[in-house]
Amino acid sequence: MSNKQVIYREKVQGSLKETHLEVRTSSERPKADKDSGAIMVKNLYLACDPYNLNLIRFSTQLGSVSTAISLVTFTRHMMLTSIRVCYLLLHLYSEVSNTMMQPIPGYGVARVLESGHPNFKKGDLVLGITRWEEYSLITAPETCFKIEHTDVPLSYYTGLLGMPGMTAYAGFFEVCSPKKGDTVFISAASGAVGQLVGQFAKLFGCYVVGSAGSKEKVDLLKNKFGFDDAFNYKEELDLDAALKRCFPEGIDIYFENVGGKMLDAVLLNMKLHGRITVCGMISQYNLEQHEGVHNLINLIWKRVRMEGFVVFDYYHLYPKFLETVLPQIREGKIAYMEDITEGLENGPAALVGVFSGRNVGKQVVMVSRE
Amino acid sequence: MSNKQVIYREKVQGSLKETHLEVRTSSERPKADKDSGAIMVKNLYLACDPYNLNLIRFSTQLGSVSTAISLVTFTRHMMLTSIRVCYLLLHLYSEVSNTMMQPIPGYGVARVLESGHPNFKKGDLVLGITRWEEYSLITAPETCFKIEHTDVPLSYYTGLLGMPGMTAYAGFFEVCSPKKGDTVFISAASGAVGQLVGQFAKLFGCYVVGSAGSKEKVDLLKNKFGFDDAFNYKEELDLDAALKRCFPEGIDIYFENVGGKMLDAVLLNMKLHGRITVCGMISQYNLEQHEGVHNLINLIWKRVRMEGFVVFDYYHLYPKFLETVLPQIREGKIAYMEDITEGLENGPAALVGVFSGRNVGKQVVMVSRE
Repeated sequence: MSNKQVIYREKVQGSLKETHLEVRTSSERPKADKDSGAIMVKNLYLACDPYNLNLIRFSTQLGSVSTAISLVTFTRHMMLTSIRVCYLLLHLYSEVSNTMMQPIPGYGVARVLESGHPNFKKGDLVLGITRWEEYSLITAPETCFKIEHTDVPLSYYTGLLGMPGMTAYAGFFEVCSPKKGDTVFISAASGAVGQLVGQFAKLFGCYVVGSAGSKEKVDLLKNKFGFDDAFNYKEELDLDAALKRCFPEGIDIYFENVGGKMLDAVLLNMKLHGRITVCGMISQYNLEQHEGVHNLINLIWKRVRMEGFVVFDYYHLYPKFLETVLPQIREGKIAYMEDITEGLENGPAALVGVFSGRNVGKQVVMVSRE
Repeated sequence: MSNKQVIYREKVQGSLKETHLEVRTSSERPKADKDSGAIMVKNLYLACDPYNLNLIRFSTQLGSVSTAISLVTFTRHMMLTSIRVCYLLLHLYSEVSNTMMQPIPGYGVARVLESGHPNFKKGDLVLGITRWEEYSLITAPETCFKIEHTDVPLSYYTGLLGMPGMTAYAGFFEVCSPKKGDTVFISAASGAVGQLVGQFAKLFGCYVVGSAGSKEKVDLLKNKFGFDDAFNYKEELDLDAALKRCFPEGIDIYFENVGGKMLDAVLLNMKLHGRITVCGMISQYNLEQHEGVHNLINLIWKRVRMEGFVVFDYYHLYPKFLETVLPQIREGKIAYMEDITEGLENGPAALVGVFSGRNVGKQVVMVSRE
């Protein structure tokens, strides 16, 4: 009845290192009592995403101070950091009393072993917030989705068919107001969300260009994900010039993942009535003070609409999303790359690797083959 | 047959001074030949607006260099400066060969004396781009509106019933997506546009707060224009705190006229699904490099839509605007203040005064009582 776990060994400040984490084996497994409203699951696949770091950072911080103070800190931090993580944190916060020495939280695919909730039964597959351990108790299973289509790899539900996929889908179709023939620029385009936005836009009939941070990633964008063009922002001396080269007539849609200097360059290159959909600003998350954006005046002259969104507002579209994307996956119209690490004991290295871009494709930890 | 004129004496760089301008009397009046497509008008009222400076600056610059180069400079400048002026300039540009020693351009109300255009006849009243002189030739009268309602003061057509009025109307009703009960914040609120946005918002059922730069203006906002609250931004050490005091529950709509630090403070105080309508960024026009805006990440977390607009896209709504606003004026529901200076010879002082805030209410130059 053992339960292997990845726990916090110490408070994470600055970048995440493997030494912050520890793999240990607990001698107890959680139980979901009848009518408790909770479910006990066997974790199968765990997602490694940048937001994991925020999850870890904030939940360790939250655990160490009084409830009232941490809620204030937390709310302030939420507004300054990765947004996707806010709801997860809110949920976790209510669960956590002292998070040190607890398994780290994260998105995952799991099999229900015991159910104390009327909507779930033993054997169900679920996608939702779980913890990095073999067996987890999920106390609010209403936040999970039941997985019904198993003719595609289950691991896809941590990425393409999970939060990043929904983010790309809702962001592009619901916020960007795309039209056939629109020119679309995507920053951090080889990321889990970016690569999908690009493919959705191509399938929709747009001209798509992406930026990424290495030659390898740029090659992937052009050769594997079917982007019309791509560039390595680290090798461009002048981002404005790079955008003018790729978009001589300007940009209709910018899918914003990075913020800062790239946004400033994009603002100079938007077309009349262009749309900027703000999904993330990853270049800013680790800065004490965010970089200034100087070219907002272009919003007026170009009549540009700039709009932020969070995927959680669109989860009611998840069934429609699956209806659209599952056939495209089955027909081979969507390319998707995974980097699967086997075994929870290799989880810390896989997670830390994400922050240095060591992985190629979506990094997943396979906890169990079943 | 003389024609009094206000002309550029020298190229305007930096702030406008009276010495840049000169009042002279030409011995010739323009003529509109039959079928020329032009009209010759007697100017009655001229608007003094901040955009006049841009008009003057750019048209003097344009006159001094070759067509090709100035068009490039011009386009670049248009994207960095007051937007409202772009179309006017484009139009003027086509007219101007050497603008030095020419009467300065501006918005005005005028009476048609001769018409070479089928849509206009002698005696018509028009509102449009004219020049600071007693008699002007308007070569593209299609850009003018014919004035039909004369039971309100004709001078109103330079402000409340002209471009500032249309800007306030279109910006608020067409871009802000207002709902009854919304909390509305307006910067530069005592300006020609801001005071009207505030009154439209109040009539519509919103809670309205404005910021301005003097105690006198703040008093006007509260006591004359019916704002619920107002503050002097120059006396607030912390704009964020000022906004939190006025909007303890946050801002639904921000009507943006200033940019820079105020925008940063507003971004911290927007409500979920708030709207920021970007009409101008006057605090930035005179800066070499625009101030950085650091808090855009809040667009995501708060799902805020930020949208730029220019009034020229909405001029098809001018008849609807008049239908709405004329009855409100007749019923005394809209307060409007003018500061009318009599005589073209006093025009330079009136115009220069606008930049130091010397005027209270809309500054107008009355050229002739008729």
